[in-house]
Amino acid sequence: MEVMRVLHMNKGNGETSYAKNSTVQSNIISLGRRVIDEALKKLMMRNSEISSIGIADLGCSSGPNSLLSISNIVDTIHNLCPDLDRPVPELRLSLNDLPSNDFNYIFASLPEFYDRINNNKDGLGFGRGEGESCFVSAVPGSFYGRLFPRRSLHFVHSSSSLHWLSQVPCREVEKEDRAITADLDNMGKIYISKTSPKSAHKAYALQFQTDFLVFLRSRSEEMVPGGRMVLSFLGRSSLDPTTEESCYQWELLAQALMSMAKEGIIEEEKIDAFNAPYYAASSEELKMVIEKEGSFSIDRLEISPVDWEGRSISEESYDLVVRSKPEALASGRRVANTIRAVVEPMLEPTFGENVMDELFERYAKIVGEYFYVSSPRYAIVIVSLVRTG
Amino acid sequence: MEVMRVLHMNKGNGETSYAKNSTVQSNIISLGRRVIDEALKKLMMRNSEISSIGIADLGCSSGPNSLLSISNIVDTIHNLCPDLDRPVPELRLSLNDLPSNDFNYIFASLPEFYDRINNNKDGLGFGRGEGESCFVSAVPGSFYGRLFPRRSLHFVHSSSSLHWLSQVPCREVEKEDRAITADLDNMGKIYISKTSPKSAHKAYALQFQTDFLVFLRSRSEEMVPGGRMVLSFLGRSSLDPTTEESCYQWELLAQALMSMAKEGIIEEEKIDAFNAPYYAASSEELKMVIEKEGSFSIDRLEISPVDWEGRSISEESYDLVVRSKPEALASGRRVANTIRAVVEPMLEPTFGENVMDELFERYAKIVGEYFYVSSPRYAIVIVSLVRTG
Repeated sequence: MEVMRVLHMNKGNGETSYAKNSTVQSNIISLGRRVIDEALKKLMMRNSEISSIGIADLGCSSGPNSLLSISNIVDTIHNLCPDLDRPVPELRLSLNDLPSNDFNYIFASLPEFYDRINNNKDGLGFGRGEGESCFVSAVPGSFYGRLFPRRSLHFVHSSSSLHWLSQVPCREVEKEDRAITADLDNMGKIYISKTSPKSAHKAYALQFQTDFLVFLRSRSEEMVPGGRMVLSFLGRSSLDPTTEESCYQWELLAQALMSMAKEGIIEEEKIDAFNAPYYAASSEELKMVIEKEGSFSIDRLEISPVDWEGRSISEESYDLVVRSKPEALASGRRVANTIRAVVEPMLEPTFGENVMDELFERYAKIVGEYFYVSSPRYAIVIVSLVRTG
Repeated sequence: MEVMRVLHMNKGNGETSYAKNSTVQSNIISLGRRVIDEALKKLMMRNSEISSIGIADLGCSSGPNSLLSISNIVDTIHNLCPDLDRPVPELRLSLNDLPSNDFNYIFASLPEFYDRINNNKDGLGFGRGEGESCFVSAVPGSFYGRLFPRRSLHFVHSSSSLHWLSQVPCREVEKEDRAITADLDNMGKIYISKTSPKSAHKAYALQFQTDFLVFLRSRSEEMVPGGRMVLSFLGRSSLDPTTEESCYQWELLAQALMSMAKEGIIEEEKIDAFNAPYYAASSEELKMVIEKEGSFSIDRLEISPVDWEGRSISEESYDLVVRSKPEALASGRRVANTIRAVVEPMLEPTFGENVMDELFERYAKIVGEYFYVSSPRYAIVIVSLVRTG
C-alpha cells in the first residue's frame, strides 16, 4: 500500500465525505485548545520582539476543520497581544497535508477566512492595521520529512494525524540483534490484536518509532530555538497495545470484513494480508523517541479519554453509558461514518470500491451492538514540546 | 463579472482543457528565459552571502506550464552557483494563482518535481546536499494585493498573467477633473475596438494603471531591496490600443458571437454589455506606472512580436506567412483551442455553457480564414525590474 497515495480523507461534500463526517476530529482539536493557548502564551512572552511568526498546521486535511486550528491560533495571538502590550506580529500560516489531499476545497473558503480575521481589510490586502497581517500558504508533502525552510517556524500544531504511519510496517525487524521476519499475516485482523504474534507488535512499534523520530528531526531543523509544538493524536494509556482503547475500532472493522469473507463477498486472504498504517503509541514510547532525538523538551504530556464520538470523558466516570438500542445503533452509524470518511480510500484498493457500502453498513451495525453493551473510548495523547538550544 | 471566480483556465485533462492547450503560454515562458537568467545572475552576484532565497511565480495556472517557470529558475541557480563559487542556497519556491485555480492538479506532480531537482534525495527529504534544499508552497490569492510576508522575496516571476485585470473597467472615469460615465456598451464588441468610444479606451487604461500600481506596491512590500522581478505578458508596441496586435483576438471572437446573435442563438445585448477583463498595455503606460509607484527601476524592457501560436518572429520578417487553406484552418483551430481554454470560464456565465462548442467552432473557422489572408501577431512585453532602496 502506498500510504502517500491512499491516506487522504473522503473527498467532496457527499454523505460519506470527510467534510460531512469530521465532528470527532473537531472535538479533538477543541480538547487540545487549552494546551495550545498555554504554549502560545509562553511563546509570545519569551519572544516579545519578534515581528513575524511562522506557524504550521500539519495534516490539516480537507473539510470544515482544515482552517479551524489556524483560526483558533490566530484568535489566541490576537487576544494575547493587547495583554502583553505588544503589536500583533505578522503571521505566516502554513497548511500541510499529503499531495493527495483536496487543497482546492480549503482554498475556496480562504477569502472568507481572510474576511473574518481582517474585518477591516479593504479588499486589496492593505489597511489590515500596522504590522497586523496574515499570510496563508499550503505546503503539500509528508511531515515524515522536511517541509519547511530552516528555522522558519515558531509554532507547529498537528491534530489527529500522527497516529498514521508513513507506511505499513516492514516485515524485517531486529530482535536481539538478529533480523527476523515479522509475521504480519494477521489472521482475520487488520491491526494489532490479542491474537496477533509478538513480532507484529514489534514491527508496528518500530515503524512508529522510526516515523516519529524522522518527524522530530525534520521539525528540529525547521523550528527556531524556543519554538513550540503541540501534537494531539490517538494513543494509548497502557503499555499493552491490544487493549480496547488501542485497537478496538480496527477489531470491529475486521469483524465486519470477516463476516463478508464468510459469505464469499471478499477473500479472507486479503484481510489477513491487509495491515492498517496506524499506530496508537503509549506515553513511554513517545518519551523514549523524544529523548533519543534530543532537540525537544516535554513541557506537558497528557492522555485524555474520549468516547468514540470524540467527547471528553472524566477519568472517574469510566462506567458504561446506558443507551437504548436505537440510541446505540444511531451512535454506531455516526462512528461508522466517521471512520469510513477516513479509511475508505485505503481499503478500496484491496477490497474494491463496490463492497464499501455493504462493509460500512455491517460495521455500523456491529459498532451499534457494541455500544449497547460497552462504552468504548479512545485515548488522546496531547504533548506540548519546546525546541531547545 | 466577478473576475476572482471566473478567471481560471479550463480544468482537467480533456480536449478543451488548459492542460492540453497551453503551448502558447509555454512559448512565452521560453521567450522570457534569457531575461530571467540574466536577472538571476545579477541577483546572485550581488547577494553572494544569502543562504536562503525566496522565489515566487505569480499566476502559475494549472497545467504542464505550472512548474515550468520554477523548474527553469531552479536549474539556472543550480548552474550559476559553481560558476560563482558558492554553495546552492536554500530555495523557497512559492506558486501563486487565484483560489479558483486547480492547485490539486499541480500538487499531484510535485513528488516528480522534487525527484527531478533532487535526484540524490533519499525520500525522507534529507541528504539533498549541504544547504541544497528546495521547499515548494502554494499561495492562493490575487496578486493585485499582498500575498507574501514583508521582505520575504528575492525574485518574482510572472508570465502570461498581468494582461488580466482585477475587474472589468469601472464606468466612472475622471476626465479633465470631471467624473464622467464611460460608454462601455461596446456595440457588438467585447474589448476595445476601432469603433469603441474614447471613454471606453480611457476606462480600460485607468483600470490597468490602478491594477498595475497595486501590483507593484504589493511586491514592493514583499521584496527585499535589490530583489528582482521579471514580468512577461501580452502588450502592444504602438500607442494606439486598437491595432491588430492589441485586440484582434477579441475582435474575431466578437465576430463569432455576433454571427450567433444574428441567428438568434444568443442575445446581441449580452455581447454589447460584455467586456473582457483584459488589457494590452504599451511600454509608455508601464513606464509611467513604474515611475509613479517609485520603488522599482527598469533594468530592461523589451517588446517581442510572436505569432498567435506564440512562436517568435524576427522584427524584419513582418510579412505574410503564406499558408495553404488547410494549414490556415488547422492553425485557426489550434488558436481557437488555446483561447477557449483561457476565456471559456469567463464567457460561460454570460452566454451559457451550451453555446460554447458552437461558438469556438465558428471562432476556429473565422481565425482560420483570417490566417489565410493575414499573419496576426501578439506583442509580448518583457520587463525586468529591480527593487531599489
